[in-house]
Amino acid sequence: MTHILVTNDDGVTAPGLFALVDALRGLGDVSVLAPDRNWSASGHVKTMHKPLRIREVQLQDGSKALASDGAPSDCVALAVMGILSDIDLVVSGINPHANIGHDVTYSGTVTAAMEAVIWGLPGLAVSLDSPDNHLGALDFEPAAEYARRVAEKMLKKEFPEEVVLSLNVPYLQLEEIKGIQVTRQGQRVYNDELLKRNDPRGVPYYWVGGSPPTGIQDEGTDYGAIKSGYASLTPLTLDLTAKDSLDLISNLLAE
Amino acid sequence: MTHILVTNDDGVTAPGLFALVDALRGLGDVSVLAPDRNWSASGHVKTMHKPLRIREVQLQDGSKALASDGAPSDCVALAVMGILSDIDLVVSGINPHANIGHDVTYSGTVTAAMEAVIWGLPGLAVSLDSPDNHLGALDFEPAAEYARRVAEKMLKKEFPEEVVLSLNVPYLQLEEIKGIQVTRQGQRVYNDELLKRNDPRGVPYYWVGGSPPTGIQDEGTDYGAIKSGYASLTPLTLDLTAKDSLDLISNLLAE
Repeated sequence: MTHILVTNDDGVTAPGLFALVDALRGLGDVSVLAPDRNWSASGHVKTMHKPLRIREVQLQDGSKALASDGAPSDCVALAVMGILSDIDLVVSGINPHANIGHDVTYSGTVTAAMEAVIWGLPGLAVSLDSPDNHLGALDFEPAAEYARRVAEKMLKKEFPEEVVLSLNVPYLQLEEIKGIQVTRQGQRVYNDELLKRNDPRGVPYYWVGGSPPTGIQDEGTDYGAIKSGYASLTPLTLDLTAKDSLDLISNLLAE
Repeated sequence: MTHILVTNDDGVTAPGLFALVDALRGLGDVSVLAPDRNWSASGHVKTMHKPLRIREVQLQDGSKALASDGAPSDCVALAVMGILSDIDLVVSGINPHANIGHDVTYSGTVTAAMEAVIWGLPGLAVSLDSPDNHLGALDFEPAAEYARRVAEKMLKKEFPEEVVLSLNVPYLQLEEIKGIQVTRQGQRVYNDELLKRNDPRGVPYYWVGGSPPTGIQDEGTDYGAIKSGYASLTPLTLDLTAKDSLDLISNLLAE
């Protein structure tokens, strides 16, 4: 029986995780081992200097899940190292914001899928490009359906090893989404600003503010795809070597 | 005047940071903005949901430095967004363990240099391949001297933008190190094991144990270089697109 591990970086109670679990149930057994709290923008964490706890919790429909006080990548490592067995696929999400461009280096959602690949398992990260100032509950159903379609392919075919798949879905109705584009990592434009204020005791503190990130809408990129109404599937490598620069840097050092 | 920002992931009081600062002083003004605690294996963090504090502290020789309660990447962002000005180069380290292979995705030392590159500044991460069971104070001097040599080149020449440099130095005397090899990311071998124990109240906890990671000693890789007595300089890209897999994945999805 196919066994899928679902995790996320928003915590086990997040509605995006439940939508993903529900959509993947048709493909096999789904186990959840996810953080017990929000780890957004936490990056790739390996907890070695303290113990981790795991407890049983309930999802929105009363089904059982496991929650850990570790990071998303810790949850995957714990599962693979013995808390669960015979995992065929790890799916992380659904993150309520897109993970495009440089976002992927910060994203807990993506690093959970990276951790799966480091352990030799296929890993898929799923993110929803929801509107910046959305009020009320998000509709994760279309993104969950696209995640199901990609996960089904990953289970049936031989995808390249050492490649993490990052799926970004536009915030549209299912029938409005034009299909899947396989894309390269695009260019995020961050608009961060540092706000300096004084606390009630007159001591300064700093807070990263500014407007939400935008991006360059290039064709063939993650950002270009979602802004054109496509789901974007970007294959990411864990070999970060800047291969094109090896000779140039050798020459610069030798001069 | 050249202005170098030094940070790390072990905290502002770490001896590796002081050795680096001391070595880089000959190249220009050196400012320190580093975490106030250890963030090892913390990954790439962006703190947005809480304020950050910055306070003035003293380094080992009494010189002034800044410490923040943010992660290494937060320290770089804070510096660039206005806490410091006119930074020419960001150097992170010296980490007391090597950062090779998949380590680079977990490494706070490397992500600080990544953050610099995201902000358009040259970034160098420096790590020392110290012995696993070293007792007593580590000698950071040879690694600091190699960091100085690389930093000097980075300040004088036009290195490719969007490339992070990761320097790993073997734990040898300066005269024993054979020079610098420009390398590609090699293959780490992790030997993690999950230990399950019961706490004093009989409740289980889990701890990631096992022996320290080793690696595959391939020529031309980071691990191969340091194990052959060379300092290893690996250019890392922030474009994680698995370019070789784009067509294959398009085909697999279409089938």
